[in-house]
Amino acid sequence: MLSEQELKKLIRSVPDFPKKGIMFRDITTLIKDKQGLSSTLEQLLAKLGDKKIDKVVGIESRGFIFGALLAEKLGVGFVPVRKPGKLPAEKITESYSLEYGQDSIEIHSDSIEPRDKVLIHDDLLATGGTMEAACKLIEKLKGEIVQVSFIVELTFLNGREKLNKYDVSSLISYADEN
Amino acid sequence: MLSEQELKKLIRSVPDFPKKGIMFRDITTLIKDKQGLSSTLEQLLAKLGDKKIDKVVGIESRGFIFGALLAEKLGVGFVPVRKPGKLPAEKITESYSLEYGQDSIEIHSDSIEPRDKVLIHDDLLATGGTMEAACKLIEKLKGEIVQVSFIVELTFLNGREKLNKYDVSSLISYADEN
Repeated sequence: MLSEQELKKLIRSVPDFPKKGIMFRDITTLIKDKQGLSSTLEQLLAKLGDKKIDKVVGIESRGFIFGALLAEKLGVGFVPVRKPGKLPAEKITESYSLEYGQDSIEIHSDSIEPRDKVLIHDDLLATGGTMEAACKLIEKLKGEIVQVSFIVELTFLNGREKLNKYDVSSLISYADEN
Repeated sequence: MLSEQELKKLIRSVPDFPKKGIMFRDITTLIKDKQGLSSTLEQLLAKLGDKKIDKVVGIESRGFIFGALLAEKLGVGFVPVRKPGKLPAEKITESYSLEYGQDSIEIHSDSIEPRDKVLIHDDLLATGGTMEAACKLIEKLKGEIVQVSFIVELTFLNGREKLNKYDVSSLISYADEN
């Protein structure tokens, strides 16, 4: 199993994407590596420990990758949180703020049972707005959030503060844009 | 393990989504079920048999779910094919026709090595346009397509004809919009 430090070396940093001044942390180089893929999954599971989980929720679209992997390893179902207009059946919606304007995410109303113990996964913790909205969706459906899990955390954006009610887990941190 | 017939019962059919006259086949009810998730994966692996694979490619965004699961089970890396503007590094693009107009998909140029044996996965085979474009991307990178795999096939749209150069696998078929 690769260590968190070895996993960090497999992440590609791309300057000025999606816009000038942003250093994009690209996990595609991590997951195209077979050891990178399997070790990231093992490390995420290790951070969860022996906590009981009933459903894993993954946030569209990179959150689907390890969300599905975590669900299968834990022997539970997988639930997607999606961008607006993608889910076909009865659903609930939550809005959140972006740097300029607003966006929203949705979940099927029948996807979580009351008291389901839920792990929510996304690949990247930046400002935390998307994950905070996902947590609100789960709580509206009366699920219990056991952990919110990320591969990469941009600590200088303080997203963890927005999520301080929850057990927040991440594998790899970046303290600045370098 | 659930049979293909039992898996079909876990798929929800939603009339008039995304527009009037279309019966949407919704896999969210399949994958929120722990047996549905694990048995779908096992059935997809059974269709692949003992063919050697070096990389699994999944098409954004529902194709990421079982694409990642297949990669991990096969002990290989996972490569996302994404919608335009999402991939940060050097990439190639392929366009395809929609009912009205065009769309395109992209892949990182360094994601596939020449002669890599590739399994491409998406959740649904409709007209086959997206998968055909994905196959062209892999071939531009000199990968060898071993199988194109789907969960659901809408046989009345004849997508398989567009893909007749390839080994096409699907678990669950619908012969009409009912």
